[in-house]
Amino acid sequence: MANFRHAHAWVYLDNNATTRVDERVVEAMLPVFRDNFANPSSAHALGGLAADAVRVARGQVRLLIGAAFEKEIVFTSGGSESNNTAILSALETQTGRDEIVISAVEHPSILSVCAHLEKSGRAKIHRIPVDRGGNLDIEIFRSTLSERTALVSCQWANNETGVIFPVQMLATMAHEVGALFHCDAVQAAGKIAIDVQSAGVDLLTVTAHKLHGPKGVGALYVRDGVRFAPLIRGGRQERGRRAGTENSAAIVGFGVAAELAAEALPDQMPRIAGLRDRLELETLRLVPGSIPIGSKSNRLPNTLNIAFEDAEADSILLLLERASIAASSGSACTAGSMEPSHVLRAMRVPFSHLRGAVRFSFSRENTEDDVDRVLNVLPQIADELQARSTLLEAACD
Amino acid sequence: MANFRHAHAWVYLDNNATTRVDERVVEAMLPVFRDNFANPSSAHALGGLAADAVRVARGQVRLLIGAAFEKEIVFTSGGSESNNTAILSALETQTGRDEIVISAVEHPSILSVCAHLEKSGRAKIHRIPVDRGGNLDIEIFRSTLSERTALVSCQWANNETGVIFPVQMLATMAHEVGALFHCDAVQAAGKIAIDVQSAGVDLLTVTAHKLHGPKGVGALYVRDGVRFAPLIRGGRQERGRRAGTENSAAIVGFGVAAELAAEALPDQMPRIAGLRDRLELETLRLVPGSIPIGSKSNRLPNTLNIAFEDAEADSILLLLERASIAASSGSACTAGSMEPSHVLRAMRVPFSHLRGAVRFSFSRENTEDDVDRVLNVLPQIADELQARSTLLEAACD
Repeated sequence: MANFRHAHAWVYLDNNATTRVDERVVEAMLPVFRDNFANPSSAHALGGLAADAVRVARGQVRLLIGAAFEKEIVFTSGGSESNNTAILSALETQTGRDEIVISAVEHPSILSVCAHLEKSGRAKIHRIPVDRGGNLDIEIFRSTLSERTALVSCQWANNETGVIFPVQMLATMAHEVGALFHCDAVQAAGKIAIDVQSAGVDLLTVTAHKLHGPKGVGALYVRDGVRFAPLIRGGRQERGRRAGTENSAAIVGFGVAAELAAEALPDQMPRIAGLRDRLELETLRLVPGSIPIGSKSNRLPNTLNIAFEDAEADSILLLLERASIAASSGSACTAGSMEPSHVLRAMRVPFSHLRGAVRFSFSRENTEDDVDRVLNVLPQIADELQARSTLLEAACD
Repeated sequence: MANFRHAHAWVYLDNNATTRVDERVVEAMLPVFRDNFANPSSAHALGGLAADAVRVARGQVRLLIGAAFEKEIVFTSGGSESNNTAILSALETQTGRDEIVISAVEHPSILSVCAHLEKSGRAKIHRIPVDRGGNLDIEIFRSTLSERTALVSCQWANNETGVIFPVQMLATMAHEVGALFHCDAVQAAGKIAIDVQSAGVDLLTVTAHKLHGPKGVGALYVRDGVRFAPLIRGGRQERGRRAGTENSAAIVGFGVAAELAAEALPDQMPRIAGLRDRLELETLRLVPGSIPIGSKSNRLPNTLNIAFEDAEADSILLLLERASIAASSGSACTAGSMEPSHVLRAMRVPFSHLRGAVRFSFSRENTEDDVDRVLNVLPQIADELQARSTLLEAACD
């Protein structure tokens, strides 16, 4: 039986679902829980000290994404809230425009709010297809934009495949028709360089727990001058853009995590890409019929999605788990679903592989030993399941 | 200059703004940050362990408020989110009804979302007045209810005065016209016994940081069978009622804080009421012209709101702060505002006292020594400021 006290004995390759909180982040949060615990909005000196800590974190998050001003950072409870807020705010403030353009492979928190707006007749939603490599169809994207477009929302990188979108180009095209451009950078931030100014985005979502920060805190970047409507109304926190007592300890943790991620990026990401590439090459070599999912030329350095022929991802993951290896199929937000992921379907992954896609996502905590341990068991697991599948097929004849 | 490392040297009497995180809560969260860090929605065993921890916490929060089922607890990012969600959900699901009845002294997170709905023409808002004691005008309340009422939202206890509303009676009256009843119990939970079943509420808001839990996590109780529309859409977390990666560490902390609060209630609250009563009696005795704000017969045991004649609360708080005493005027959510609080205005506090109201809010961390320290300085502070005020008035003549 698994026990989290032995979590260190696991090979954890599900870092796109969430990451361990860095010990330096934990240490930064502890004094906020214990001593600097006041309400940052309280007028007294203790409140001022808590507000100071939040201010430092705002600067650290600003630097991670290259924002011009600290006031452009609105702290939220995480990626889903930031994504929902961005969509609804843009629709409310872009008067006279009622269309939203998204990719077909966005995160459920984008897809779901858009589906709700569509169903309730509040917006027309355009879902731009991707090719087999997971790249957006730029011609369809361009032809869909119009003076009716309130917002374009496209992710910086896909959570399941790691495929990176040409954000700067998409933002430029959105602006040409007067639309706002929102980018869900939850998976990209901390893994590749993010610069909201050169990318030209108006709104951008990041979250702490994908980069060794705590869960329950994220941010929405709102470019200075962009009109905004809050999702959560009440007190004047976050310059009236997000009510609720500031989550000061988690915000401080987010700030430290952002700084650590930015520092680690130049050294760690090439190393992580090396681990990922070795796992990919060896798996493709050792497992007949396995194929990589997603364009290899523009992927996050940490993400590998590999599909096995005639094998169920769930069975592979179960057997990997017996070897204390944690990976995933699709996103944790849709775990438990029996349906193949919307991302893989949008990429028209062949039917023979559609249910066999496994995502291995690395972090700076992973080592060569982790890759060895996966390679020690994965080929036999795939072989066993494929043999079983062939046997079952024969039995059906 | 204040320094949070010396926070223990302060007399902290702003516990209605927020509380120190109990050390047992911190200790419960640490293993979730460090080891049991997986995404509770991940399908693998590590995700299962994180989900188990969330399940335990859900049971602890259920017990705090007397809910029948764990599935009735929806974890959110805190009180403001829960309050916003309750209002918007009720309006969306109560088809054919477009009126909302609230008290005039609700928290800004209720008032603000209602004002927005009113402004955008989506709902008619009725704000029920209170008397000078802060008690709801029941006759006006009753006459306002109709088959057009989608929702009644009244707090269990007021954050500024501690005055307790007759929740069970209000809920019954709301149900008589087919309206849903939501209760903001952010200030009441952990201070007095809360039982959602005997009170008959449909929706109830609680938050962790008012009862020595972490900031950034709260819950919305949704009675089994009550129709619900999520505020934040995306993944299937919280049974599809609140998307976003579960804030597992904070949820675990909330659970422990809820359990500790429930345990401490029978012994601690009489003790705390004793501290509060001594401060109140002595202040009223020692400071001429000072008056208590809010009905004394049905108040939270920890809250004291006292108004000083011809003195500015901000000046009193500043001088208290010099003596390392933290209290407040009004709520932290409206701190920085120069306007007298909407609660005091609704209670028609006399003009001579309207700007002189100071809230002292206790927790189980407070001691007799804290009361002594306030009583050592408060009478002189009031005296000094009143003399100054008289001098200024004379100068104006």
